Amino acid sequence: MDATGHPIRVTVWGENVHEYQSDIVRAIYPHGMHETIASGFRHTLGDRVQVQTATLQQPEHGLTEDVLAATDVLTWWGHKAHQEVDDAIAARVHDRVLSGMGLLVLHSAHYSKIFRLLMGTTCSLRWREADDRELVWTVSPGHPITHGVPHPFTIPRQEMYGEYFDIPQPDELVFISSYSGGEVFRSGCCYRRGSGKVFYFSPGHETYPVYEQPEIQRVLANAVQWAFNADSSGTPLDSVNSPTGWYERQT
Amino acid sequence: MDATGHPIRVTVWGENVHEYQSDIVRAIYPHGMHETIASGFRHTLGDRVQVQTATLQQPEHGLTEDVLAATDVLTWWGHKAHQEVDDAIAARVHDRVLSGMGLLVLHSAHYSKIFRLLMGTTCSLRWREADDRELVWTVSPGHPITHGVPHPFTIPRQEMYGEYFDIPQPDELVFISSYSGGEVFRSGCCYRRGSGKVFYFSPGHETYPVYEQPEIQRVLANAVQWAFNADSSGTPLDSVNSPTGWYERQT
Amino acid sequence: MDATGHPIRVTVWGENVHEYQSDIVRAIYPHGMHETIASGFRHTLGDRVQVQTATLQQPEHGLTEDVLAATDVLTWWGHKAHQEVDDAIAARVHDRVLSGMGLLVLHSAHYSKIFRLLMGTTCSLRWREADDRELVWTVSPGHPITHGVPHPFTIPRQEMYGEYFDIPQPDELVFISSYSGGEVFRSGCCYRRGSGKVFYFSPGHETYPVYEQPEIQRVLANAVQWAFNADSSGTPLDSVNSPTGWYERQT
Amino acid sequence: MDATGHPIRVTVWGENVHEYQSDIVRAIYPHGMHETIASGFRHTLGDRVQVQTATLQQPEHGLTEDVLAATDVLTWWGHKAHQEVDDAIAARVHDRVLSGMGLLVLHSAHYSKIFRLLMGTTCSLRWREADDRELVWTVSPGHPITHGVPHPFTIPRQEMYGEYFDIPQPDELVFISSYSGGEVFRSGCCYRRGSGKVFYFSPGHETYPVYEQPEIQRVLANAVQWAFNADSSGTPLDSVNSPTGWYERQT
Repeated sequence: MDATGHPIRVTVWGENVHEYQSDIVRAIYPHGMHETIASGFRHTLGDRVQVQTATLQQPEHGLTEDVLAATDVLTWWGHKAHQEVDDAIAARVHDRVLSGMGLLVLHSAHYSKIFRLLMGTTCSLRWREADDRELVWTVSPGHPITHGVPHPFTIPRQEMYGEYFDIPQPDELVFISSYSGGEVFRSGCCYRRGSGKVFYFSPGHETYPVYEQPEIQRVLANAVQWAFNADSSGTPLDSVNSPTGWYERQT
Repeated sequence: MDATGHPIRVTVWGENVHEYQSDIVRAIYPHGMHETIASGFRHTLGDRVQVQTATLQQPEHGLTEDVLAATDVLTWWGHKAHQEVDDAIAARVHDRVLSGMGLLVLHSAHYSKIFRLLMGTTCSLRWREADDRELVWTVSPGHPITHGVPHPFTIPRQEMYGEYFDIPQPDELVFISSYSGGEVFRSGCCYRRGSGKVFYFSPGHETYPVYEQPEIQRVLANAVQWAFNADSSGTPLDSVNSPTGWYERQT
Repeated sequence: MDATGHPIRVTVWGENVHEYQSDIVRAIYPHGMHETIASGFRHTLGDRVQVQTATLQQPEHGLTEDVLAATDVLTWWGHKAHQEVDDAIAARVHDRVLSGMGLLVLHSAHYSKIFRLLMGTTCSLRWREADDRELVWTVSPGHPITHGVPHPFTIPRQEMYGEYFDIPQPDELVFISSYSGGEVFRSGCCYRRGSGKVFYFSPGHETYPVYEQPEIQRVLANAVQWAFNADSSGTPLDSVNSPTGWYERQT
Repeated sequence: MDATGHPIRVTVWGENVHEYQSDIVRAIYPHGMHETIASGFRHTLGDRVQVQTATLQQPEHGLTEDVLAATDVLTWWGHKAHQEVDDAIAARVHDRVLSGMGLLVLHSAHYSKIFRLLMGTTCSLRWREADDRELVWTVSPGHPITHGVPHPFTIPRQEMYGEYFDIPQPDELVFISSYSGGEVFRSGCCYRRGSGKVFYFSPGHETYPVYEQPEIQRVLANAVQWAFNADSSGTPLDSVNSPTGWYERQT
């Protein structure tokens, strides 16, 4: 809920492809990963949020101008079909983030068009699908995203994502993970871009029930509240000609 | 000169359009702004650099694969013709920065394709063409880019660039400027992106002899040395599958 | 108010010396600067805060263990009597910040013991008492401290504080000011230290009614809400021996 | 060697206590840890450095005003005897860092007086003496401290240092380590404080021959070159009264 008592409007975007192609994924996420993520928000935040979903398959991927204008925080999970996201929609989301919408970028969405547009780097990383155990360590204990999160917490089985992760140095680094194989990863990264806030969070492989895990739901719920911007405006900032100096103007 | 005694290879890129369209600009920069900037490097750094120029009008804008592969640090000045820079060339420069080439982004190049690709924001700002006096203040006194730079130094007449400047928070903020009209601007900003370093420096309007000024030449010479990366590689990083954990691999 | 509906407990600390020594200061702040600052919080935040004051002259400077334990956010104004603050009390406040209490450091408190302990630098700056007009520019538009703050806003008469300000680079730089004389200053700076958040805000000279100004009250009210930490603990972190590895422990 | 061809003057400070108390340590470091560290610099950097040592047991701990004035970069290893370092000497080193001397803080010196003075936090951490294998991963590939350093490299046996490490967020995070037990640690951290640069590097326990390892010597040699400041001045910055504005002064 924001300071004026309105619920935060969250849109959970799902690529929604693995769910149709893999029995394993469908068994874990029978209504789609986006529905599980959305349920997590409803369960954890109750009437402090108003949650809807959108998917790749919908017209305009479910992200019309109206939907985005009525979204305070967008979450993005994608993996197999990054290239199927229309450039114009990616640009629209980009503009909306710069004008103040919060964005949570989840797991394999490190390679999404929207995240790469915002970061300006390749967003490449090291990876392994081998049932690694992941430990998530807090390195910013006063940060609101860590509120109520155990230090560390364990994800029993997870895809390994390791360094070097080719991102700009985060404005605030919140979590670092280790894996059974010895790799490390900056798994929780905060950025400000324009008037918007972006949180990348790496746990969340489609073949494990990561989004059912209470610690993960807690992190994402905290992140929604952190990413909410009460001053979100309609459009990204344009350059402004200022023909008279401020001192002159005022005298 | 790098640690092994080789000169740093600098390519000075100029849009080179104002020089043909405006008598005022041509009077100040009779051989083009890029030649003045290049001369500044030669004068200040002598045999520690090897300097060449490239312009928009050349084939591939003078930035072939070979030229970029042989460039340690690229400087970029553009204003009127950002849209005439081929997307493929901008992407090529982007890749080269991520793989370790240094980049100095000058003045109105805040709106260049390459800078916007690297920043992920609009890079918009406040501006006024009104002969403002600019004062450049150092806010990072131990930084190598400030070596030998007076605090503050004055640019007698300059276009005003003011906040809000829509950029990611710099990794290191080096200079802040004030203007006669009372505006302020983050005028010297350092970023790391991929394996490359980027320095944005705002002084440098085409209708003033800013690049003749010794303090400006000092800043740019320092920045070339700072941006040089001895480990610059051939290509930006790609994701790496790492099928076996490091601990397992070593036992 | 925090997420559980309790008001944020704010303690406004005032040095309270100028008020006794100067007719000018007493005329502007007849009940002491701390009372004006406290009133600003009550006026702007209403029942979202519970505000008390404490002053240098009280036993333990009004900052007993009990008072600090019951303080979520402390504000600190001092100037003439930094050296009269007992080292043990400064250390106690330092510990309390590291364990999660928010701290707002105001104007001349840049030279307070507590701020210097937290920063690790000299915190020296450039200054002039000459009725400068200050313009405060926002450089982080999505930051909660800027919510509802005009860009820029003017402080009609203020002591000049200029760069170089010898502080660590802020974790988030929120405001930059310019002055009539042409100087600039990083006037709004956010830091995390331990589990606590620190905000330095430079406006606030004792001979001007700065703390009566609505924009200033808005910034400080926003900063109190930003600095509040729901996870604030009893003591700063101590080193922890961890005799068994996490992986071993769990298998 | 600096840009003018003079060698960088390095002083290696050693607590030099374990070496007298432990046969194990003396067997690994027969001439003291400081001599091994000093040899590493001489071996790796040759005539680009001029290296001397100083120890706790010497008058003024070997860190007289003259020694510090003639030191460009100081390295600090301590563990058992932090409290025996005289406060006045710690303050002197602190002042010298703020005025531009580089400082490398090694391993257990995270708890040294000088590091805590500079950081302003507790600098506490998690630890275990249990022959963990440490993997050191680079997270800032273009950074000069990583030049020529394998990614990752292994330290076969090392004391575990784990998060949460209570430090300010580094200005640049260069290395993250993992341990056999699953812990992670920000093992290479860069800071600017005043005009000086500080690098904390965690490998280096006294019961293992870590400072004989080529990768470690390479990191430390790179760090010395990074921390060198050609503009190092005599004293930390004091506040400056600036009675006349810069604009007025110049008209």
